[in-house]
Amino acid sequence: MGKTELFIGVDIGGTNTEVGFVDISGKMVHCTSFSTSAQEVASQFVNRLGNVIHEGVGHLEERYVCKGVGIAAPNANNFHGTIECPVNLGWGTVNLVELLGERVTVPIRVINDANAAALGEMEFGAAKGMRNFVVITLGTGLGSGIVIHGEILNGAHGLAGELGHTMVVAGGRDCGCGKTGCLETYVSANGIRRTALVLMGRKFYKSELTKVSFAEMTAKAISDAALAGDQLALDVLEQTGKVLGRKLADVVAFCDPEAFVIMGGVANAGELLLEPTRRYCIGNLLPAHKGRVCILQSKMKPGEPAVLGAAMLMKKK
Amino acid sequence: MGKTELFIGVDIGGTNTEVGFVDISGKMVHCTSFSTSAQEVASQFVNRLGNVIHEGVGHLEERYVCKGVGIAAPNANNFHGTIECPVNLGWGTVNLVELLGERVTVPIRVINDANAAALGEMEFGAAKGMRNFVVITLGTGLGSGIVIHGEILNGAHGLAGELGHTMVVAGGRDCGCGKTGCLETYVSANGIRRTALVLMGRKFYKSELTKVSFAEMTAKAISDAALAGDQLALDVLEQTGKVLGRKLADVVAFCDPEAFVIMGGVANAGELLLEPTRRYCIGNLLPAHKGRVCILQSKMKPGEPAVLGAAMLMKKK
Repeated sequence: MGKTELFIGVDIGGTNTEVGFVDISGKMVHCTSFSTSAQEVASQFVNRLGNVIHEGVGHLEERYVCKGVGIAAPNANNFHGTIECPVNLGWGTVNLVELLGERVTVPIRVINDANAAALGEMEFGAAKGMRNFVVITLGTGLGSGIVIHGEILNGAHGLAGELGHTMVVAGGRDCGCGKTGCLETYVSANGIRRTALVLMGRKFYKSELTKVSFAEMTAKAISDAALAGDQLALDVLEQTGKVLGRKLADVVAFCDPEAFVIMGGVANAGELLLEPTRRYCIGNLLPAHKGRVCILQSKMKPGEPAVLGAAMLMKKK
Repeated sequence: MGKTELFIGVDIGGTNTEVGFVDISGKMVHCTSFSTSAQEVASQFVNRLGNVIHEGVGHLEERYVCKGVGIAAPNANNFHGTIECPVNLGWGTVNLVELLGERVTVPIRVINDANAAALGEMEFGAAKGMRNFVVITLGTGLGSGIVIHGEILNGAHGLAGELGHTMVVAGGRDCGCGKTGCLETYVSANGIRRTALVLMGRKFYKSELTKVSFAEMTAKAISDAALAGDQLALDVLEQTGKVLGRKLADVVAFCDPEAFVIMGGVANAGELLLEPTRRYCIGNLLPAHKGRVCILQSKMKPGEPAVLGAAMLMKKK
């Protein structure tokens, strides 16, 4: 009997790296993860990744034949096979296709993590069957993966999809990118913490969050407090939804997608964040666009869209 | 000898309609224009357009064979062949493909006017050879035609490209679309007039423009004053370039184009507008995008990109 095709998807995060061994139907037949240890040099990381791939393929080689490795990473440039100075990985710019190519013989491609998540959602998730949609990943920062006419939007230099660094407030909050007023300084785990502090400074709140330092405040603590009815936390999510919803309305005006798929840690606040996001998005749509776009929460497990999307990248070759 | 293929491009403006008879090389072998008379019913307009087409084709039929009619119009939806309630044409929603199809037998398609201009610039203008760029038309309003990976960005419902109705200032200036704070309320002929009034109200200026009423103020008067060194007019163009440049930086973050091509009446202010636009765009780019996008002024005659682009739409069938 012939062997089944196997596609490997890798998602390099600041803390952990997920590796999924995926068949053509999107079934993850094996998965594993290991510590990214981003403070080490990239070659050591690639060595460990190579070992994990060889081990997994070894387990599965009786029934499967590996067709390629797709790697999702922050700041990945699929034109060049590189990842370029991502903030959470201390590797500078490295060519992962070349480095891993010394360890494995199958084709390798890299893809921006939000773009990989968009591919995963398009193949197996909330965006199945859609040809125009935008994935928003709400983690430490805000990522976006844009699908136009059925294809990932790469742009002229592989640098598209930086919605997190479009402007919300001229001269607004300092951003890690060096600019000010970027969307991600308001809408992200860090953005939510900053909004909590600003609201505490502006109004009187009886909230347990007032006893937590800025350094110790987390987006999860704010979500949990909101779910428990804390007014400060609810106001933070309302404010966050307002900023995000208005920006999504701008995205609709620009590129007319069918849907947004929201995912990532901050999205776990669920409807407490999505309801105001929808309200402000709809309130800022042009008449012609009303009723033609929806805002969905990803139904997949955390990290799964990017691993599946990276794996499916290799199916397309 | 065989006849040469001929493509007809029509650009329906609020005042005049331009009709160009174009060969495959983009040479306009014949052109004519007539009054749109937008206060009449659409069927009368289509009758006149049919007559102009038959007359032109009659002149040329010894050497040319007509392959189709492409029509550029505001709010045109090329998915449905309709134009949908454009502000400057009192026709409501009309199906131009059906209406004109009663008069001519060749294929007919409609396209949004800014998208037609983008096609024209891509085939014969400043964007020749580019696969990712954005055309900005600065007239009474602000239109945008977006080319992604070599194709016009239509979006899921043929409604993409409304950059003029993305937000600049939350709760800002009233816009004709019913929203507030839209880009076109700051960057357009009308936007420039409004900025002139706001600046006069804010600062002391010795300017001839202070003697002109809001109703009588024109973008051309402001451009002319700026070219003559009038400080108020120069400040208006600086302010306009600031708002436009920041928005273009956001567009770069989102879709990573090679270039912007600026055209339309307001763009006639030339470098007085383009220099601040470039400066604020570059100042708001992410480091990775710097040096990778340029802001160009269209070199074609007014209206020509849309007529040529509409004609070339028929070449693609």
